[in-house]
Amino acid sequence: MRLKGFQKLTSVDDALQKFFSAVVFRKPRTVAVQLDSALNRVLAENVVAEVDLPRFNRSAVDGYAVSASRTVGATQFKPKVFRLTDNSRIGAEGTKQVWTGNVIPEGADAVVMLEDTKLAKERVDVWTQVTPGENVSKKGEDIRRGDVAAEMGTRLRPQHLGLIAALGMNSVKVYDKPRIAVLATGNELVELGNRLQGSQIFETNKLVLSALCRDLGAEPLDMGIARDDVDEIFEKLRVGLEKADAMITSGGTSVGGSDLVPDAVNKVAKPGVIVHGVAMRPAMPTALAVVKDKPILILPGNPVAAMIGFEVFARPLISRMLGLKRTEPRLTVEAKMTRGIATVLGRRNFVRVRVFPRGDELLAEPVSARGSGMISTMTKANGFVIVPENREGLEEKEQVLVQLFDNVEG
Amino acid sequence: MRLKGFQKLTSVDDALQKFFSAVVFRKPRTVAVQLDSALNRVLAENVVAEVDLPRFNRSAVDGYAVSASRTVGATQFKPKVFRLTDNSRIGAEGTKQVWTGNVIPEGADAVVMLEDTKLAKERVDVWTQVTPGENVSKKGEDIRRGDVAAEMGTRLRPQHLGLIAALGMNSVKVYDKPRIAVLATGNELVELGNRLQGSQIFETNKLVLSALCRDLGAEPLDMGIARDDVDEIFEKLRVGLEKADAMITSGGTSVGGSDLVPDAVNKVAKPGVIVHGVAMRPAMPTALAVVKDKPILILPGNPVAAMIGFEVFARPLISRMLGLKRTEPRLTVEAKMTRGIATVLGRRNFVRVRVFPRGDELLAEPVSARGSGMISTMTKANGFVIVPENREGLEEKEQVLVQLFDNVEG
Repeated sequence: MRLKGFQKLTSVDDALQKFFSAVVFRKPRTVAVQLDSALNRVLAENVVAEVDLPRFNRSAVDGYAVSASRTVGATQFKPKVFRLTDNSRIGAEGTKQVWTGNVIPEGADAVVMLEDTKLAKERVDVWTQVTPGENVSKKGEDIRRGDVAAEMGTRLRPQHLGLIAALGMNSVKVYDKPRIAVLATGNELVELGNRLQGSQIFETNKLVLSALCRDLGAEPLDMGIARDDVDEIFEKLRVGLEKADAMITSGGTSVGGSDLVPDAVNKVAKPGVIVHGVAMRPAMPTALAVVKDKPILILPGNPVAAMIGFEVFARPLISRMLGLKRTEPRLTVEAKMTRGIATVLGRRNFVRVRVFPRGDELLAEPVSARGSGMISTMTKANGFVIVPENREGLEEKEQVLVQLFDNVEG
Repeated sequence: MRLKGFQKLTSVDDALQKFFSAVVFRKPRTVAVQLDSALNRVLAENVVAEVDLPRFNRSAVDGYAVSASRTVGATQFKPKVFRLTDNSRIGAEGTKQVWTGNVIPEGADAVVMLEDTKLAKERVDVWTQVTPGENVSKKGEDIRRGDVAAEMGTRLRPQHLGLIAALGMNSVKVYDKPRIAVLATGNELVELGNRLQGSQIFETNKLVLSALCRDLGAEPLDMGIARDDVDEIFEKLRVGLEKADAMITSGGTSVGGSDLVPDAVNKVAKPGVIVHGVAMRPAMPTALAVVKDKPILILPGNPVAAMIGFEVFARPLISRMLGLKRTEPRLTVEAKMTRGIATVLGRRNFVRVRVFPRGDELLAEPVSARGSGMISTMTKANGFVIVPENREGLEEKEQVLVQLFDNVEG
């Protein structure tokens, strides 16, 4: 029993550093998927162009393909005259009509735009001079055969799918989604859909943490609720770690003064708990553990603390497990504090704020500093401000960086 | 045949205004979904709390529940003494141990934190005075019965799911995903997986436009490729409009000078094409149409233009069809141009840039102004800068707002 708080808190940066150096990151499994199912997956290979793009010299405009040298000196008053042909090869005085995307015929090295010409039967008057290559997309100008079109570790956005398809590839190798087992603990918790009795409450953290995992592109596994019992937690941990690549728990980090989940984790295998108690607010009772090379993130049961703990520890962890080159930044905006707020020196404080526009600027209104148990503060807020350990608060009108987790309403 | 360009271009703002006033926005269909499938769906009802949250006065800390008035004057040197009980009701001199989240027993109105007490058998010494309500989360303090916990038109983020679950709701009514039929047109196009001949190229726009739809939360329907033939396009439009709530086409807006898709659209039904030719760059040949109250977005075949046209017209359109309260803003950052770039006066120019950090600031490097046919420019770029109609370019070192469509690499 550790009734009266943690002896020593680890700083957020040290906690992250210790955790990340203890986790053994294996190369994620890979899987081939069709391009039309690959949106937002993470590329597990360098996609190398097997062809030039464009595959041939192609017209960039609607017009007439010509030999540029023959247009020198052409003006509206002294047009150069070309002879229209439909062959795939034009002579020095020949020209061929081309639409955007058409192959440039042999013998031509430029295209005169339609509006700079006049057609009369087989004869085309050209009013302007063009330089070699003008209005031509050269073979390989977009991508050259052998070039890396998309790098391993890229999250595939619509434009990447388009480029890969243009190269003629139908499927890509992506990393398998990391499986994250999500467990809630607490005697007071009841699964949604049941009736509450006494001081019971509905379990909500699994739902929120699973949604956060899913949003990042990981696959959450529901491990249910464990009662406040080390053996029951131990058993759920054992199964979770067998099925999943990592585990996130909520609650039981400092229940009635006892560390149920950390104790159960330490029973499973070495090295077990690496950090317990982080110098942050909320989510101070967070613990970080590694068992059989797999990371376990032990979050407080408090819903707001669980979300902030996920943000700080699970987001970079899962990004790494996804195979991403780096953690994707959250949308960040600058805003001005509507009022000052006190924070705790020596802790990294995550202050929930509601950002809203006022005239030309964005304002950030602190949302109820009171009780991180208030889940509604997470929907009233749309972002948070990080107040570093060496500060005791934020001042009214202070310009702050807000990390958004929801839209700013107009 | 309209061989030499558009007679008249409509400004982007006018085009949006005309389009949006011609579309008849019906209230989207609604569907009930379980909370664990509701992530990123759009709420079709106001979620009203049927209970108070918390449901009862609850301890916000681990400690002892007391009557605050009895603690007046308590100090470490002159503690107030309470008698420990386990009843659901305490007397004036009684106290009951409570953990975070426990019901406050009757007769108590505050909780003294564990660290401010000393327990000896049945006797609890309290070293500090507390005020009524201290360390207590009051019934209804988080959400009061009858309050709107989440508003109709909200995109359900993880925190909304948590709050709704805390209220005991298992499912919510969300809007059905709008169905968007996506059609590509062009004789040169071949579906992925086939072999190319002559000047054929792989169709990529359907893939990209469908992914963009999916990312917003709409459901794309693949209408295949239509050849450059008004009757074939007409038939695909007819089927698409029957199956879907809106349609997006690419190509055939100005093919070899003829307006195949606009002509086919006008054959389907009134009012047909409302805008054709927009004062923007790229995507100038964009057309906007309404047929049987359903919107049709007719995009150029050029892959870059198709994406930008989607961004400008489909994003606000689909946001509205999703039932969202407002179009969700793109992630926007400020950056400094690495070099100047010329744009066309009288057009709204969408300049692709690659944003990257350099020291403390973000720089924006224009990505090949040349040829909007170069699909690789969309993966080299990670955002775009809008240059308004009354400007002729951006200057070197100019501070610009970049709308990101991919991550900024660190």
